[in-house]
Amino acid sequence: MYSDFVLANDRPAYIQVKDYIRRLITTGALQGDQKLPSTRELCGLLHVSRNTVINAYSELEADGYIYTVKGQGHFVSSSAAPSNSVFQSHDVKMNWSTKLNDYARLAEEHDLMKHGIRGQKQAISFTSIAPDEKLFDLQNVKRAFMDRMSLEGDVLLNYGYAKGYKPLIEYLLNYMENKGVDLAGKDLLVTSGFTEGLSLVLSSFKQGSGRILCENPTHHTAIKAFKMHGYKITGVPMERDGINLKELSRELASQAYDLAYLIPSYHNPTGIVMSHPKRKEALRLLQQYHVPIIEDGFNEELRYSGSHIAPLVVSAGSGNNSVIYIGSFSKILFPGLRVGWILADSTLIDYLESVKRARTIHTSTLDQSLLYQYLYNGNFEKYLKRAKTEYKRKHELVVRSCQEWLPAHQLSSDGGLHVFIEFAAGVDTRELLKLCSEQGVLFTPGDIFYTDGRGQNTLRLGFSRVSEADIQKGIQIIGYCAEKLLS
Amino acid sequence: MYSDFVLANDRPAYIQVKDYIRRLITTGALQGDQKLPSTRELCGLLHVSRNTVINAYSELEADGYIYTVKGQGHFVSSSAAPSNSVFQSHDVKMNWSTKLNDYARLAEEHDLMKHGIRGQKQAISFTSIAPDEKLFDLQNVKRAFMDRMSLEGDVLLNYGYAKGYKPLIEYLLNYMENKGVDLAGKDLLVTSGFTEGLSLVLSSFKQGSGRILCENPTHHTAIKAFKMHGYKITGVPMERDGINLKELSRELASQAYDLAYLIPSYHNPTGIVMSHPKRKEALRLLQQYHVPIIEDGFNEELRYSGSHIAPLVVSAGSGNNSVIYIGSFSKILFPGLRVGWILADSTLIDYLESVKRARTIHTSTLDQSLLYQYLYNGNFEKYLKRAKTEYKRKHELVVRSCQEWLPAHQLSSDGGLHVFIEFAAGVDTRELLKLCSEQGVLFTPGDIFYTDGRGQNTLRLGFSRVSEADIQKGIQIIGYCAEKLLS
Repeated sequence: MYSDFVLANDRPAYIQVKDYIRRLITTGALQGDQKLPSTRELCGLLHVSRNTVINAYSELEADGYIYTVKGQGHFVSSSAAPSNSVFQSHDVKMNWSTKLNDYARLAEEHDLMKHGIRGQKQAISFTSIAPDEKLFDLQNVKRAFMDRMSLEGDVLLNYGYAKGYKPLIEYLLNYMENKGVDLAGKDLLVTSGFTEGLSLVLSSFKQGSGRILCENPTHHTAIKAFKMHGYKITGVPMERDGINLKELSRELASQAYDLAYLIPSYHNPTGIVMSHPKRKEALRLLQQYHVPIIEDGFNEELRYSGSHIAPLVVSAGSGNNSVIYIGSFSKILFPGLRVGWILADSTLIDYLESVKRARTIHTSTLDQSLLYQYLYNGNFEKYLKRAKTEYKRKHELVVRSCQEWLPAHQLSSDGGLHVFIEFAAGVDTRELLKLCSEQGVLFTPGDIFYTDGRGQNTLRLGFSRVSEADIQKGIQIIGYCAEKLLS
Repeated sequence: MYSDFVLANDRPAYIQVKDYIRRLITTGALQGDQKLPSTRELCGLLHVSRNTVINAYSELEADGYIYTVKGQGHFVSSSAAPSNSVFQSHDVKMNWSTKLNDYARLAEEHDLMKHGIRGQKQAISFTSIAPDEKLFDLQNVKRAFMDRMSLEGDVLLNYGYAKGYKPLIEYLLNYMENKGVDLAGKDLLVTSGFTEGLSLVLSSFKQGSGRILCENPTHHTAIKAFKMHGYKITGVPMERDGINLKELSRELASQAYDLAYLIPSYHNPTGIVMSHPKRKEALRLLQQYHVPIIEDGFNEELRYSGSHIAPLVVSAGSGNNSVIYIGSFSKILFPGLRVGWILADSTLIDYLESVKRARTIHTSTLDQSLLYQYLYNGNFEKYLKRAKTEYKRKHELVVRSCQEWLPAHQLSSDGGLHVFIEFAAGVDTRELLKLCSEQGVLFTPGDIFYTDGRGQNTLRLGFSRVSEADIQKGIQIIGYCAEKLLS
């Protein structure tokens, strides 16, 4: 004992001695009521000054790890030492994998980070659709933080409200009003990103038929969430301008649905923007069958060309309360700041607020206030303009490169940070991925976005974080491998 | 139209004109394909320069809200205007309160922020057990943020990992190891505070008997979470040194339990620290009946006197994997930073990580990295020392004041930020609260902490955010009102 102590440079010596002795106590190397070396002895053993040991002992005593008997020295507190731990090695261990429910098992089973594509570090990876961190304007983020901390740092670090940080709520309400939403009868809840918003809604919703309707393909995280909540999923095929209305109508007529989930703008994974007439007809149909809609406002801002199209929550009209709009700045601003929001009927928001409070109390006030100040300082519009220029250039390059290098395919994408590719029926993109990954190129096989196991001949290319040189090189390699697979 | 435009000073004029026109479009005041005033006309109508209008129109066109016809002028994009919204006022509205399940309804019903005690702003309030924001060392928090942002700001603002921010995970593992935890077979997941930790565990756990066991009284948030997850709750009475072992043993023998939830240190609401021998016996009993334990590490650091006592996860011994430890710095550091953690069997953590990812992707990286840097910079120990000195002084003052002013009662509290008072059986603390609140004093009636509707004669006094003068004045008023109630 004491011979393994090594003094580091990064912290005061007495803290290191204190931590060292505490570790000996808590791990049972020193027993309860055992006498410790005298301060004189210990400073010799550890090669530190006597004062260091005196300080360390005094801290350990203040923390209740040791006690002093006058004239006799220092002793280990018996309750601090594990001494004889309760259980022996022959105790039966718990088998946790049998203790978990379907909700947890499905979360694990559909966890792309665990069962997804892994490549070498140097690979050209088209798997991410997160923003390019090189575009982040760190100086403005720092300024926003300092501004806000100086104004009300003590408030920011103490408890906030489940509903959200007031100034941010006001900002977002105004933001939604600017999109044309009539706020009468509606309210807003700040969430930790889109994902929490969806999870809150699904957790709180009473199941009737247990069926949910969505576009096919659709956002993988949403499919996972539906499955975790026990929903049977019906995917309605996508067309070039959005969901297939005939199929939608047929499905609605054939059976009852609890909910519909739609991504009308820059749909994930196809990148398609649903046309305005189609939006109106889809809304009319879903309203006719009394099916509430979860509208995923994902990437709504990443329009590179074409007209602005109002979100469903606007097109539904002010009298309507059946659209639950979930928004987020994550995909265009900073995903690390976990801030999104739900705009919906105020009764629904009132319940969701309580569920949110019961689950996480509130979203990080720091994230919210920093985002608010960043927006308030007018940085968002400027950032968006710069980001759109960047992404638009990359988007055009991706489209051109696919035309140049890929064998016969259909490409869809009206904007956003990715394109979606559909090859001829024979091309298996899982096979293709194997070949490509040997050449150091990764993408997301499209089948994971399908609700019915189809899409084997599809893939998604996220380009936001790939350099222009790598975009060209990567797509060339995909093309080369696809040709090889075809021959 | 155009007469209600008012130019403010806080933003560039062209942005204000842009926002104004956009609002006219999205709200339908301007119709699709309607011609806009010429730039010359509009600058007269809005009393701004022509350049301002030209810039505003150009931005609106870039954003797809308007389009230009050469030689004819500017027109509203038809898809941007809601024009004729889909639904008419005679459409049936959704009744959201009938669409919600028990989980949501119970969250609302047990939401203290909605149905709790409300007082005037100037009231002396003993309801909070959040830290005193006057103690926050904002300078060190700011420094921690700037340090971390300079090191890896771009990484912090992009997606992180569900499991947590790596340096913080390392720090917390070491922190737990210092408490004596043998990490073999265990792992750690960062959560958004204790509340999310508990919610993740309860959501993922397969119910067998559907019964959960806890101390009575216990943490209100936990009771709410158990009810939301459909558990039947058995509360085992508290004694001066922790849970009543005879009752615990009797309950375990009489029926099966899925889980136990314990707050061994500075128990909420009683403030009691479970004695070391009691911990060992409780552990032995629960192990004998194969009941996993959720250990709430709440306020473990807020010891003012007495020996350090090892947490259950340590006393259970290294071979044991049945204790799920949930920790948090919120109550002692900054509640606004939503950071807690679960330390448990690594198989369990593996599943919980996937559930966490499916629900919120990850905890705010900013919160995590700021906390990490703050801890790394050595601020925590210093802060804790200062905070403990403050709180200890207040704690002693509260105990003295209760002795001096309150009629016959039992006070419990071995530390922490609150004390718990039990009056004679006749004293109804809801009645008492009514009287006190008329005198501008608030506290938390104890019944909300009871699992069986008892505790009418109890109350909790949180003192962390009450000044010393108000502590004395407030308790004097409570005593005066209690005497009145008794006579």
